[in-house]
Amino acid sequence: MTPTDHADAKHPATEDLSLPRVLSALSDPLRLGIVHLLSDGQERQWGELDAPVSKSTLSHHMKTLRSAGITRTRDEGTRCYVHLRSDDLDERFPGLLASVLRADSEDITPIGLK
Amino acid sequence: MTPTDHADAKHPATEDLSLPRVLSALSDPLRLGIVHLLSDGQERQWGELDAPVSKSTLSHHMKTLRSAGITRTRDEGTRCYVHLRSDDLDERFPGLLASVLRADSEDITPIGLK
Repeated sequence: MTPTDHADAKHPATEDLSLPRVLSALSDPLRLGIVHLLSDGQERQWGELDAPVSKSTLSHHMKTLRSAGITRTRDEGTRCYVHLRSDDLDERFPGLLASVLRADSEDITPIGLK
Repeated sequence: MTPTDHADAKHPATEDLSLPRVLSALSDPLRLGIVHLLSDGQERQWGELDAPVSKSTLSHHMKTLRSAGITRTRDEGTRCYVHLRSDDLDERFPGLLASVLRADSEDITPIGLK
């Protein structure tokens, strides 16, 4: 993990969010689980997430969410933090995140907190 | 599966629609364009669609939409028809299709009628 991994350059501007890309990033059970966990608006440290995958796999999913503009990540020393860009998503695609979070689907991997 | 599901080998039942799969099927500019075109509720013959892709590529996209439960297709002689499963999607994932159709994104391929 380099400092530039969480640089602003890695976060697309709100007006540049792409619908196909956002939908693609959301089209995964584990990433949907992460979005659900973050939907309370809290910023979470990656290490807090209780996901049934390896650190490298979690990192891959986090990058997918971040590069699509769904989450914003930041470093603080050696720790990585993440939060949901709810306002940005609502501004760009009104109602999309809410409908995804409201959806009752068994194909969402529950992610807890350690 | 109940008789009212209208499910068959090609079309998943409404209760079997998967959120990740629906989102994945929607995460493509051309498929979003097809969904936009069909959002008026009209059934269309495939040959009517003015898409900037080959017949075989269009057929592939149509299969992706159908197998995710987004569209229903039927044959009549040598002709293929398609319509949007708006009611089924609304029942399973309320508001999702509306938010996707409302989204203003440049990453949607406009599909016209010949």
